[in-house]
Amino acid sequence: MTPGYLRIDREQSAARIGRDIETLSGPDYTSSPEAIRRYAYIPEYRNTLAYFTRELREIGFDVSEDPVGNLVARNRRRGEPAFGLGSHCDSNRNGGAYDGTMGVVVALEACRVNEELGLGLPLQLISFLEEEASGFGEPFIGSRAIAGTLGDETLDEVRALDDGRTFREHARAAGYEPERWRECSQALDGLTGWIELHIEQGRVLQDAGERLGVVEAIVGLLWADLTIHGRADHAGGTPMTLRQDALAVAAECVLELERLAREAGEGTVGTAGQCDVRPGLKNVIPGEAHLGLDIRSVDGESHRSIARRIERFAQDAASKRGMRAEYVQRSDTPATPMDARVVEALAAAAAGSGEPFRRMPSGAGHDTQVIAPHVPSAMLFVPCKDGISHDPSEEADPRDGALAVEVILNAIRSLTAAG
Amino acid sequence: MTPGYLRIDREQSAARIGRDIETLSGPDYTSSPEAIRRYAYIPEYRNTLAYFTRELREIGFDVSEDPVGNLVARNRRRGEPAFGLGSHCDSNRNGGAYDGTMGVVVALEACRVNEELGLGLPLQLISFLEEEASGFGEPFIGSRAIAGTLGDETLDEVRALDDGRTFREHARAAGYEPERWRECSQALDGLTGWIELHIEQGRVLQDAGERLGVVEAIVGLLWADLTIHGRADHAGGTPMTLRQDALAVAAECVLELERLAREAGEGTVGTAGQCDVRPGLKNVIPGEAHLGLDIRSVDGESHRSIARRIERFAQDAASKRGMRAEYVQRSDTPATPMDARVVEALAAAAAGSGEPFRRMPSGAGHDTQVIAPHVPSAMLFVPCKDGISHDPSEEADPRDGALAVEVILNAIRSLTAAG
Repeated sequence: MTPGYLRIDREQSAARIGRDIETLSGPDYTSSPEAIRRYAYIPEYRNTLAYFTRELREIGFDVSEDPVGNLVARNRRRGEPAFGLGSHCDSNRNGGAYDGTMGVVVALEACRVNEELGLGLPLQLISFLEEEASGFGEPFIGSRAIAGTLGDETLDEVRALDDGRTFREHARAAGYEPERWRECSQALDGLTGWIELHIEQGRVLQDAGERLGVVEAIVGLLWADLTIHGRADHAGGTPMTLRQDALAVAAECVLELERLAREAGEGTVGTAGQCDVRPGLKNVIPGEAHLGLDIRSVDGESHRSIARRIERFAQDAASKRGMRAEYVQRSDTPATPMDARVVEALAAAAAGSGEPFRRMPSGAGHDTQVIAPHVPSAMLFVPCKDGISHDPSEEADPRDGALAVEVILNAIRSLTAAG
Repeated sequence: MTPGYLRIDREQSAARIGRDIETLSGPDYTSSPEAIRRYAYIPEYRNTLAYFTRELREIGFDVSEDPVGNLVARNRRRGEPAFGLGSHCDSNRNGGAYDGTMGVVVALEACRVNEELGLGLPLQLISFLEEEASGFGEPFIGSRAIAGTLGDETLDEVRALDDGRTFREHARAAGYEPERWRECSQALDGLTGWIELHIEQGRVLQDAGERLGVVEAIVGLLWADLTIHGRADHAGGTPMTLRQDALAVAAECVLELERLAREAGEGTVGTAGQCDVRPGLKNVIPGEAHLGLDIRSVDGESHRSIARRIERFAQDAASKRGMRAEYVQRSDTPATPMDARVVEALAAAAAGSGEPFRRMPSGAGHDTQVIAPHVPSAMLFVPCKDGISHDPSEEADPRDGALAVEVILNAIRSLTAAG
């Protein structure tokens, strides 16, 4: 039996979410005065976990940190069934107040409302360690520990961007026991489902005037480096007919990537976000041009096809001009479909709220893609101003966060009841 | 009356040129072990001037340095007619042994041969200060002092790249009197002509199997910065249809510049030697893309027309995609035709040598373009390996230098006799 749609006091929730976000933007919680900058295990990050710990204990949750430093809080005993919700509260180095943190704050507010209204939902909140890779250059450290895919070698291979010391050293210095990372998977025990709220990091919702996005899949993501090797001749002394201009080939590749991604249609994107030339002087023809490529698709295949085609295109375009193209794939994360039941529960609840929403892919990666193979999972997006994220000007509306709290609680209610 | 073609002992001259170059590549003459690096007024630069001073005094030349540090050497009294020859012996910071220095060495060798063979030519050698801008970020300081176009303000505006102190301070600390820069123009007194030998800095001569290039004009050169302002959205969260990708417009401009320069034909080149994007992350659509443009033409007009067309193209291409293009011209040096009589004298002498040569433009800028408005001037090029310059791997053949000595002496003989 599915319970009727529950309305919460959204204004009160919006006020509390706004206050949480504001608090966590204060000087105790960021190591930069110009941006939100926090990552494992700096004091400002520890203060942030301490804040969530205090707030969650206040409403009766059992709060602990696992061997690497994921925060896990429950209103049921360990091992008993509970529904998971949360996100991460580290930021990128020049970050804003909402990416990740809003997801943990909304989860906290959902826990508060669950207790206040006596909804009796069994909940487990997780704040994942190091989603953004800003501490150690490595993303998803916490969620991979929970999912069991971190690997012993990572402890020593991954090094702090600040001082080059290993993850193991930093974790131990902070009082954790990273060697016991396999025990982090206890957070999955009894977990019946998982919902992560996140800001959209795009402008689709804002531009369409919608307040929520129910994520149906997290896109597959391929990163590659493309380097064109030409010849760094003198710009004045080398006629146009004798040139091997690496940037000219790179420019053709930039436009071809755009063409291929457009041709593939909705759900597929291709971006050359990096472009560097060497030697990079006005009076020297680029002898080398590098493009950093990011190609994504929701079906998990079309981005791979584009990657293959752009590699071939680059080689042809380079060889036509007597040059050489070097293509190196850096990573290829498969697309992660969200769990249909959780998606439908979220969509039904969103519809029940009467507010405009859409089903959509997540074009960005999230901890949820690491967790989804183990627990029925989905995500909910709220709009962010002009699609800006990873920047101090990042902005989202606490009222959308309050709406998300309401929709998430309704979804969990229906899933728990139906289960 | 034009004298008959004079043959010199080219083998002996090649050996001496090779030895000079080798000496000046030694540790006393460069501040870097990996490259030739010398600029005003570092010890290695002073050692280099001291070397030329010794060698020139040995053959009876009167050698002095002017108030900024140009080296001027004569075998006639000051004010008496003499024919000028020389180049510069500073290098760029990661430079090679030939750019500039080979021109001074060839001039020195011409002076030696003139004395040895008792040719009786009145000669004045100049080694210009700071052609490469590697000391103070400002090119042609020495030749501009001689040409009277340096300007008092330059003394204090131009600052050393090493320590930020002004040109005036450095010059005074080195024992010069930069305030008296106007007196540098005394080097023009009685100067009847000027020939500078330089490595080609291109691959035209090498690829055509030619040993000399008689320069007919130094190209006009325009530098500009083109910045496309787009929007730095998340690569994953922003569908292709919602993007303002600054790099896409920049790529169109790179290809259009290439097309325009090709269309303009021989003697015109266009180069985007710099390309930077911001923020420069794989997962962020470039919100800003910058191109550094270098456009040159031997007629002095077609490069300006291309600059105007690329500016308009960029604005159109940007506005079609809802973006904005910002074009800033940084410099515009007019083309400098060489003196027809000096050119013909060099061409006749080159023909007389029986060696393959061509008439050609200089695509690079040289001190000669600063001097040419005051003295009938021309330049002679020798091939350099693979067209490489401004690099430790720079290479030229001392035998081509010896051929140049022969051709230059023949040209000066015919010009002096005819005058």
